[in-house]
Amino acid sequence: MTVKAYGARAGDQTLESMNITRRTPGAHDVQIEIAYCGVCHSDIHQVRSEWAGTLYPCVPGHEIVGQVSAVGAHVSNFKPGELVGVGCIVDSCQHCADCDEGLENYCDHMIGTYNSPTPDAPGHTLGGYSEQIVVHERYVLRVRHPAAQLAAVAPLLCAGITTYSPLRHWKVGPGHKVGVAGIGGLGHMGIKLAYAMGAQVVAFTTSESKRKAALALGASEVVVSRNPDEMAAQAMSLDFILNTVAAPHDLDAFFALLKRDGTMALVGAPATPHPSPNVFNLITKRRSLAGSLIGGIPETQEMLDFCAGRGIVADIELIRADEINEAYDRMIRGDVKYRFVMENSTLAGTA
Amino acid sequence: MTVKAYGARAGDQTLESMNITRRTPGAHDVQIEIAYCGVCHSDIHQVRSEWAGTLYPCVPGHEIVGQVSAVGAHVSNFKPGELVGVGCIVDSCQHCADCDEGLENYCDHMIGTYNSPTPDAPGHTLGGYSEQIVVHERYVLRVRHPAAQLAAVAPLLCAGITTYSPLRHWKVGPGHKVGVAGIGGLGHMGIKLAYAMGAQVVAFTTSESKRKAALALGASEVVVSRNPDEMAAQAMSLDFILNTVAAPHDLDAFFALLKRDGTMALVGAPATPHPSPNVFNLITKRRSLAGSLIGGIPETQEMLDFCAGRGIVADIELIRADEINEAYDRMIRGDVKYRFVMENSTLAGTA
Repeated sequence: MTVKAYGARAGDQTLESMNITRRTPGAHDVQIEIAYCGVCHSDIHQVRSEWAGTLYPCVPGHEIVGQVSAVGAHVSNFKPGELVGVGCIVDSCQHCADCDEGLENYCDHMIGTYNSPTPDAPGHTLGGYSEQIVVHERYVLRVRHPAAQLAAVAPLLCAGITTYSPLRHWKVGPGHKVGVAGIGGLGHMGIKLAYAMGAQVVAFTTSESKRKAALALGASEVVVSRNPDEMAAQAMSLDFILNTVAAPHDLDAFFALLKRDGTMALVGAPATPHPSPNVFNLITKRRSLAGSLIGGIPETQEMLDFCAGRGIVADIELIRADEINEAYDRMIRGDVKYRFVMENSTLAGTA
Repeated sequence: MTVKAYGARAGDQTLESMNITRRTPGAHDVQIEIAYCGVCHSDIHQVRSEWAGTLYPCVPGHEIVGQVSAVGAHVSNFKPGELVGVGCIVDSCQHCADCDEGLENYCDHMIGTYNSPTPDAPGHTLGGYSEQIVVHERYVLRVRHPAAQLAAVAPLLCAGITTYSPLRHWKVGPGHKVGVAGIGGLGHMGIKLAYAMGAQVVAFTTSESKRKAALALGASEVVVSRNPDEMAAQAMSLDFILNTVAAPHDLDAFFALLKRDGTMALVGAPATPHPSPNVFNLITKRRSLAGSLIGGIPETQEMLDFCAGRGIVADIELIRADEINEAYDRMIRGDVKYRFVMENSTLAGTA
């Protein structure tokens, strides 16, 4: 099946309309008519070849929601017309210890929704900036939010699970004081989710202008991280820090805010390294620096259900497909509250 | 009481014999005639002012064993003649959450055995390179090893607990494959203790010459970390790494050896930072970089009893007090298997 998509033919080119091919659904495949696709900062890194190994044409997009449009013969859990989502993962080995535990995100053979090897044309996966996608049922999530919220659900598939998973793994809950560093696509979800889990949330931002908005998201305090006095006031007070800042920055300033045995989990990977952390900050209070990568499929479903039950969605700005290049420019300037979401029906009119 | 000690009068001077004053034991104090004191690399850093803030005269030494020589009026747990030890800690606030949990090592007001503030002359604590020491009973440990092993027990008070505590905290035991990086004073204890806890131990060293010795300590495999093929053979196989290497080195090479959710705990603090770790190595397998500082008093007692029950002591080379400067030079060259221990009775003849 040929469908419209938006992608780039090279790392130095803007995204443009293109036709791509989707496979005929196999016995365990679900075909999805994509209604919306969130725009993640990873999309920019990958399509612009800022990370190694981008394959072209590159069609980004891994925050996918839509309606089932067809199912394979052996699919019993999904029916045409149902609301579903697809995140960052469309396949994995399905038999390693990670997959057996539902942690397909850590499988050595995890297949990303775009830029990963596949037998389908053109030999690598193509993502959600497209009209339809065909995905093995194991990697399809059920969306239980009201249909009217569907666009704002899309970012949960990456920004939501990427923040939910570490908050759960490090057991954030009532009685905890949790820092969320960076108030962007990931950070704004981190604040909402940590708050919903019952924690007291301190938001950290470099811009004074985000103070009010962070309080509205659920933070009880907002700290401008460039202000040493505001930082010092939080010293040794946090149980956990979810650090969503992908730009290289001083990790030591945040370590000093953690209690003994506190962990700072990084979910953003900088293109160039952070300044080397001071080992004394780790040793003297048995602190940890950790990383976390999206989340597994069962936990992604758990997160979607958690959010549906509490009316949690992302704060978004809808765009047409042909506005994607401008949206990228605005994201790089930090000019979005907090996630762009493509309305995929607008792909039909592009050429 | 005036006693003989060995210490330095300035950072650029060698250690020499000196007289120091010990307080008269207070109601809760234990006075100890020091039989042996282990020589820790921290002693060199501190006495040579390689870390900030060394106070002079500086008498190092925090791996102390000996006999109780007097007790204060309210001391009921210790009697003259009993074998005891003192480690890195001689006081703390005694009422914070850390102290309440027996984690005096993480108390913000922890008083180190040397170079920490005290009302005693000369205003800072003086350590175990001395004939006698007076310590609050809370910080005195009972030694249950046979008296004949006493010299080899001394290094347990720092090297032993510094490796025991993280192995316990990260729950090392049967079924685990554990790496111990660096085969020196700390590392050789790490290998012995991890092995005694039931783990399979892989020792990492930069010197081919240590291979045989590491196997004798309890390692089932030894990897020369400069050999990329030997390192690659351990990829993704370790549950935990105890990294005792204080010199700046490439942490990424070790992260690659950890399984998903594995932790590398640093117990050595380099004078200059390690090269900045690659965040992708943390994120892609949810790995952690942590630090750990000695251990609390109850856990130090637990460690001593664990070792006494299994006949575990350090491998040592006994020195006279007046050999300490030469011992430092040999430690810096890595020429010791694995810990120098001062025979404190030799202080009597120095002047």
